[in-house]
This record gives sequence, structure tokens and C-alpha cells, in this order.
Amino acid sequence: MPIDDRFYESLGPVPVAELARLAEAELRGDGAVLVTGVAPTASAGPGDLCYFDGKRPPGPADVNPQAAACFVTPEHADALPDSVSALCTPFPRYSHTLAARAVLRPRGWQVAESESKPSNVHQTAQVAPSAFIGAGAAIGDRTVIGPNAVIGPGVQIGRDCEIGANASVQCALIGNGVKIYSGARIGESGFGVMGGPYGAEDAPQYGRVIIQDYVTIGANTCIDRGAFDDTIIGERTKIDNLCQIAHNVVIGRNVALASFAGISGSVTIEDGAMLGGRAGIADHVHIGAGAQIAAAAGVFREIPAGETWGGVPARPIRQWMREVAWLQKQISGEKKTK
Amino acid sequence: MPIDDRFYESLGPVPVAELARLAEAELRGDGAVLVTGVAPTASAGPGDLCYFDGKRPPGPADVNPQAAACFVTPEHADALPDSVSALCTPFPRYSHTLAARAVLRPRGWQVAESESKPSNVHQTAQVAPSAFIGAGAAIGDRTVIGPNAVIGPGVQIGRDCEIGANASVQCALIGNGVKIYSGARIGESGFGVMGGPYGAEDAPQYGRVIIQDYVTIGANTCIDRGAFDDTIIGERTKIDNLCQIAHNVVIGRNVALASFAGISGSVTIEDGAMLGGRAGIADHVHIGAGAQIAAAAGVFREIPAGETWGGVPARPIRQWMREVAWLQKQISGEKKTK
Amino acid sequence: MPIDDRFYESLGPVPVAELARLAEAELRGDGAVLVTGVAPTASAGPGDLCYFDGKRPPGPADVNPQAAACFVTPEHADALPDSVSALCTPFPRYSHTLAARAVLRPRGWQVAESESKPSNVHQTAQVAPSAFIGAGAAIGDRTVIGPNAVIGPGVQIGRDCEIGANASVQCALIGNGVKIYSGARIGESGFGVMGGPYGAEDAPQYGRVIIQDYVTIGANTCIDRGAFDDTIIGERTKIDNLCQIAHNVVIGRNVALASFAGISGSVTIEDGAMLGGRAGIADHVHIGAGAQIAAAAGVFREIPAGETWGGVPARPIRQWMREVAWLQKQISGEKKTK
Repeated sequence: MPIDDRFYESLGPVPVAELARLAEAELRGDGAVLVTGVAPTASAGPGDLCYFDGKRPPGPADVNPQAAACFVTPEHADALPDSVSALCTPFPRYSHTLAARAVLRPRGWQVAESESKPSNVHQTAQVAPSAFIGAGAAIGDRTVIGPNAVIGPGVQIGRDCEIGANASVQCALIGNGVKIYSGARIGESGFGVMGGPYGAEDAPQYGRVIIQDYVTIGANTCIDRGAFDDTIIGERTKIDNLCQIAHNVVIGRNVALASFAGISGSVTIEDGAMLGGRAGIADHVHIGAGAQIAAAAGVFREIPAGETWGGVPARPIRQWMREVAWLQKQISGEKKTK
Repeated sequence: MPIDDRFYESLGPVPVAELARLAEAELRGDGAVLVTGVAPTASAGPGDLCYFDGKRPPGPADVNPQAAACFVTPEHADALPDSVSALCTPFPRYSHTLAARAVLRPRGWQVAESESKPSNVHQTAQVAPSAFIGAGAAIGDRTVIGPNAVIGPGVQIGRDCEIGANASVQCALIGNGVKIYSGARIGESGFGVMGGPYGAEDAPQYGRVIIQDYVTIGANTCIDRGAFDDTIIGERTKIDNLCQIAHNVVIGRNVALASFAGISGSVTIEDGAMLGGRAGIADHVHIGAGAQIAAAAGVFREIPAGETWGGVPARPIRQWMREVAWLQKQISGEKKTK
Repeated sequence: MPIDDRFYESLGPVPVAELARLAEAELRGDGAVLVTGVAPTASAGPGDLCYFDGKRPPGPADVNPQAAACFVTPEHADALPDSVSALCTPFPRYSHTLAARAVLRPRGWQVAESESKPSNVHQTAQVAPSAFIGAGAAIGDRTVIGPNAVIGPGVQIGRDCEIGANASVQCALIGNGVKIYSGARIGESGFGVMGGPYGAEDAPQYGRVIIQDYVTIGANTCIDRGAFDDTIIGERTKIDNLCQIAHNVVIGRNVALASFAGISGSVTIEDGAMLGGRAGIADHVHIGAGAQIAAAAGVFREIPAGETWGGVPARPIRQWMREVAWLQKQISGEKKTK
């Protein structure tokens, strides 16, 4: 299916040799072939740029021989159809991304910009007229603030960031290259309920949210500010839609959180951990570096570095799977003997 | 309790005979009785229109004899109190809806409309002045765009649609009669994390969201656009609040998803399937037509058409329930013998 | 870490004696010490106000001797370091909140206000110019409506409320001192799917949402209006981010719902109940006063007052924990004998 040019602007055609240069890939094949679009590898047609990042060599069904060019690791390049120009790199999917930017550009919001910008909004920033920029907020070079987004007073946003439509950011310092998708809520008051003489009361929250460089935050995800200290999201951590990050959580680098992940107050997650969809972590729990948490797990105690846990309450995944299988066996046996 | 006229405008009184005509129902009883409101069947008072759609005949507690009129299937009409005019139809609840429209009208947003509309916004469409309409977006007859909603460039929206307050729609083609409630996020980038030379990177997303006729999408629900192809929601599928539909999901017709349903990437769901609250489905899994998934289930493999599954990991519901009961029995027994 | 004055305005320094007076606390120590900030008790430095609300007396690591003053219950006051002025009250954390308001003020949105207000918006209310106020909506004294928030026609909002950025409220009556955080959706149509001659149809919803005094509603949380009657949230109930409250739910006073709580249609929850994160309740279920529901529980039947339940399906928590432990033991044993 061709890319819909109502949403993505065509910048091509671009010769494969030029894409090889842009993505710093080694070209094996015809560099004069023209690229006009992108497509999944199995269904790529004439003019399409694709990638193959499988661990085994591509088979006949994996790469359509009509494709114009395919990013691939050097060791698998020879397995591509002869008709497809190979672009060899150690990171085929990533390199494809770099090249694709020269072929297609998302049309973005195409907002008419405000005629005058506050002094602390960089001249190259794009701010939708309907966005709210609070007093003293600073917006860096080339950052885009979407329609009806709300940036609170004093918020600092770095360079090359994208703040989506209807998103809100307050009490927060945001690095460079950060993407905050539509409807995300950054810096709201955390949930601190305490008793008082009249009943339940909210504990006021005096902290901030710190979001480091190249973090991505999904649509309608919420990240609360710290109670006194900070909630921190480390470099290149990627967070899916509809996640909840409570106050004083500290997340390291390159962590991935799938949709509906729920991180309770004061949890720490070390670098490179991965949470499946709907995984939840109870407050003050520590998750070691590179730990993996299965979808739908409920974690109530520390997970050591590198381990994979699942279930509610979460336990090492093999143990959980053995329990599930054993229980199923008891029932099957009981059924038969009856 | 009478309907609050600050939120719903009274259009009545309307004679029962007129409502019978509008809803194509067979009237048994007094057609001159005037209807002024709607109410639950058990508590309906004078002037109230109600419906009974139970499988057994209504008992004395089911229908208040003060009610003005009641939609009911023909076989149960005689069981209504004599004082209540019966309106017989095969779909009592649905027919009640048709008639109720002649009695009450939600006041809606009552936005002051923009003085001039872009050429591709139909003259009968209502667009709140604070809504953002991107370049080239088209809005059909009688469609209402709520306050502070954001419609991205090139988006196509059909006739008789409602886009709620603060909702955002981008990279999407929307059919007729579609309702997208407040804060829903249609067409955001899907969650595609990949490795690169510097750490985690987002895979760019070049696809679209296709929403077919009469689909309803709940508040703050997120539907991501496809990576290269489309995310598709089939005709009359109804999605509750706070659901997540990832990239490249394909959902058939008349599917119902309760709140917090989470559908991972490239899942396919056939016509008429039903998901309970918080049901989750792992990526690439196929759900057969008419399958039912219990609340809180976590589905990691294919569910055949027409089956009902539950639990985490999901299994046929009877098996899951037997396991739950058996385990409970072991503990009770152990407790007694101790 | 000092509080960031880009987000919180310093109102101090304030002498401890003055804070004792404001919070109606008994001062034990030097009333002339000046307070300039707030901090966690263990890390509080010179000028910082803190609180200790533990059940046992504070140990040496609990309270930093550099802190200026500490709210504490009278029985634990003597265990504070001599260098820290004690402020004795029965509710240390709550009293700290009262005093902290004299030391620091959140900068809020600092919106430029509309020049003229509709007649039913109180002169002391602050309404962001980009907020939408529907026809006939009333806004009480000192209530703040954030940027790009949407208040539907006829909505009544009391005194001293805060409506966050990009939040929307419709078909609702809101009491005094209510906080609705950014992106919350109050009063959307509930999820009522019914069959009709053409397939699935939405049942129209004619009810309201009633939110009583001092309720707090988290970011991106959704509360649907009733079908014919009302959805009701009782006084001082506190709801975290990303919760779902369906139509016709009735929640009592001082109830706490942690993040991702999901309350299905027509559920009733009595006063003082507490739901952990991601707890879900099936429709029409009744939860007794003071009941506690563990995180990730799925409740399918009534929980008596005062009991604590967990698991899916939920059962008394001790039973659930015994089942979990017993199952784990079977597997460990089986493993060893193999």
C-alpha cells in the first residue's frame, strides 16, 4: 500500500546511492535505482525502501524482489534477492529510519505560528497559536508545541522536542529530543492521601519532573511530580500510551514501558529494564538493570538485575510458568479420573 | 428523578401515538397519553417513557404502573401493567432510543461557530472556534467538532460524527456516524522501540487509522496509527474509555471492548467478539468471531471463534474456573486437617 | 534539595512561632527560628520545615538535626533532636500542609484573565482565556479554570475548585474545594451497547455526575454520567490518575482509589473503602464500608464491610495468600523430587 500523501509529504525520488551516503551504509547493488516510498519488507514494491533485521538469513518470503533497496546486516546481504539493492549496516532498522527521512516527511500540525514570540521561546521553535505558554517558560531551538498544548510557568524545554496536541507540562525540566505525545500529563500533583481532622486530605507536592534527552512519552500517559524531590526519567527511556508514573519514581536509561505500565511512588528502575503491557510495580520497590517483567505482572518485591519475572504476585518467570502448567495438569487429571 | 434541563432540552410533551409512529412500534393502549421524559422502568413516573428488554415477562416490580408508556417485545406486552401503554417492537431498548430523541435533546456544546469555514468543512458542520482544523482536513455534513479538539492536516471525517472536547485526530480517515469522545487520541505514533548505535530509538510510523461507520470510541482511549499499513476499526465496533489499540491492529464489526482493554500490535479481532474490562491481548494474536474474553484476562494465544476464555494466561473459561475452585478446595482442606 | 522557585514562589522567611499559630500546634523549642522551605524529614536542612508521622518514636536517621522545625505528635516530640523545634499536633502531616502554605505557593497557571466574565462566573474566579465556558455554566468564588479546559453548558462548579489544563466537565454538578486534574473527563456518555436492527448501537445517557465537596480527581481519569440517574462521588473521596468510573456508580465519603482503578456500572462503594492500583470491580457489585481491595484484584462479588480481599477473582486476602504460597510449595517440592 502506498504511503498516504495527505499525511506524509513525498521528498523523493532519491537514488539509493544517496540514501547509502545519508545512512552511512555500504551499498551492494545498483545505486541509481530511485526510491519513492517505504514499506514492510515482505510487501515492498517498486521504489520502496525496506529493512531486514532478522537473526537468520532472509528467506524467499521475507523480502519482496520488487523492492528498490533493503537495509540489512552485512552477513545477510547475499541472501537478499538479486533485484534488490542491499544497504549494509549493523543496525538495519535504525539506518532505514535515517534514510526514510530523506524520502518522506510527516506533515505535522502545520500550524500558523504566532506573530510574536515571548523572549524565551527560540525563534526556530514552532508554537501553535492555541497553545498556552506560561510565564517564564523556555522553549528551545526547533521544538514544536502542538495545538492546544499547555506549558506551565517556568517549564524548561530543550531543543528538537515535540509536545503533542492537548498535552500539558508543568513543574518540569525537559531535555533535548524529547517527544511527549498528545494528551500526556507531565508534572501533576502526585497521589498523597493523608488523614486530617475533617477526613481525607491531599498532601501538597513541591517537587518536579526531570525528563532527560531522547525520552519518548506516549499519549495520555501521566508522570506526577515529586513530593519534595524529583521524579526522574532517564535518557532514551521509551514509555508507551496510558502509563502511570507516580511521584518520586526514578527510572534509568533505555528502559521500555509498554502500555498501561503502572509505577507506584518511589520505585526505582535501573537501566535497560523492560516492562510488558499492564505490568505494575508496588511502591518503593527496586528493579535491577536489564530486568524483564512479563505483561500483566504485579510486582511486590525487588527483582534482581537481569532476571525475568511474571505473574501476580510476580515471581521468576519459569517458576510462574511451572505453577500454571502444574495447576492445569491437576485439573486435567481430575477430570479424566472422574 | 426528572431529567435535568440544564443538560437536556425538553422537546415534549409528545403523544405516545406519535412516538409509536417515529419508532415504528405497534401501539397497544392509549395513544393520547403525553410523554415528557425518560426514566428507568422500575422508577418511571407520570409522563415517563421506558423500556423492558428482559427475557422473561416483566414482574410487578419491573415496571412502575405510573409510567406513561413502555417499549416491550410483543410476547411480553400483556404482562405490563394495564395503566402503561405498550409499544411493541423486536428491539425495545433501541426503539426507546429513537423515540427518546423526540422527547429530549442533549444540549451539546452550544458553541458559537466560526464566522467563516474552510472550504472543505461542510456548511452544516459545527466547529468550535477553539478547535484546530489542519490544512486539507475535510469535515462532513452535520459533524460536530468540540471545543479545543484538534484535527490534524489531511484528516477526513464523514457525516454526522461527533468529536469530543480536547480530543485529537491525526493521520486518520473517519467514516459516518462515528463518535470520538473527549480526550481520545487517534493516530499517534505507535510504540516501536528499536536499538541504534546510541541506545533505544523510536521507529517512525508511516501508516494511518481507518475508522469505519458508526464506531464509538471512549474518552481518553488511544488508537495508534499503523507502522506502514493501517490500524482498522470495523463498522459499529464500540470501544469504552481508556482503552489502548496499538499499531496495525485490525478489528472487525460489532466488536465491544470494555474499559482498559489493551490490544497489542498487529492483533486481529473478528466480528462480534467481546472483551471484558481490562482484558489484554499480546501482539500478533488472532481472536475468532464472536469470541468472549473475561474481564482481567491476559490473552497470549489464539482464541477460536465463539469460545469464552479467562485468566492470565487466558484459557477456556470453564477450565480456568475449575482451577480456581480446585485450588481453593485444597487450601480449605489443608486448613481443616491442620 | 531546595524547592525550585520557578514552580513554587517563596513567601518566607516565616518564624516557627508564626507557623505554630497558623497550624494551631504547640511549640516546643525556639520560636524565632526562620523557616524558608520544606523538605523530607531525613534530608531537611537549615530553614526547612518537615513532619514526622511514624507510629514509633523517631530514631536518629529519621530526622535531620539541621531541620528548622518538625511537626510531630506530642508523645514523640521529645525524641526529636534538640536542635529541631517541635510543633506538636495530632495530625503532623496535615498540620505541616497548613504551615507550608505560608512558606511556599505553587505558581499555578498565571493566566491572563478574560477582560469580561459571563454573569454567572464569580468575579474572584480565574478563568484562562483559552478555556471554554458553556452557556449557563456557573463558576464559584476563587475557582480556577485552567488553560484549554472545557466546561459544558449548564455545569455548576462551586467555590475554591481547581479544574486542570485540558480537562473537560459536562452534565455535572461540582461542589466546593473540588480538584479535577489535567485531562480528566467528567460526564461523558457511559458505555451502553445494545443490539438494534443494524447491529450494535449506543444507548443514550440522560443522567449527570454529582461530585461532592473536597473530592480530588486524578489526571486523565474518566467519570461517566448516569444513564438516567446520577453517578455520585462522595465528600473527600480521592481518586488517582487514569481511573475509570462507569455510569451510575455511587461512591461514599473518604474513599481512596489508586491509579487504574476500574469501577463498572452501578457499583456502590461505601465510606472509607480503599482500592489499590489496578483493582477492578464488576458491575452492580457492592463494596462495604472500610473494605480494602489489594492492588491488581478483580472483584466479582460483594465484599463485606471492613474486609481485605485480593486476587482474581478476588477472595479474602489471607486465603489468596495461602493459595499462592501453597501452589509455590507444590512446585518447589516437585522440582526437588525430580
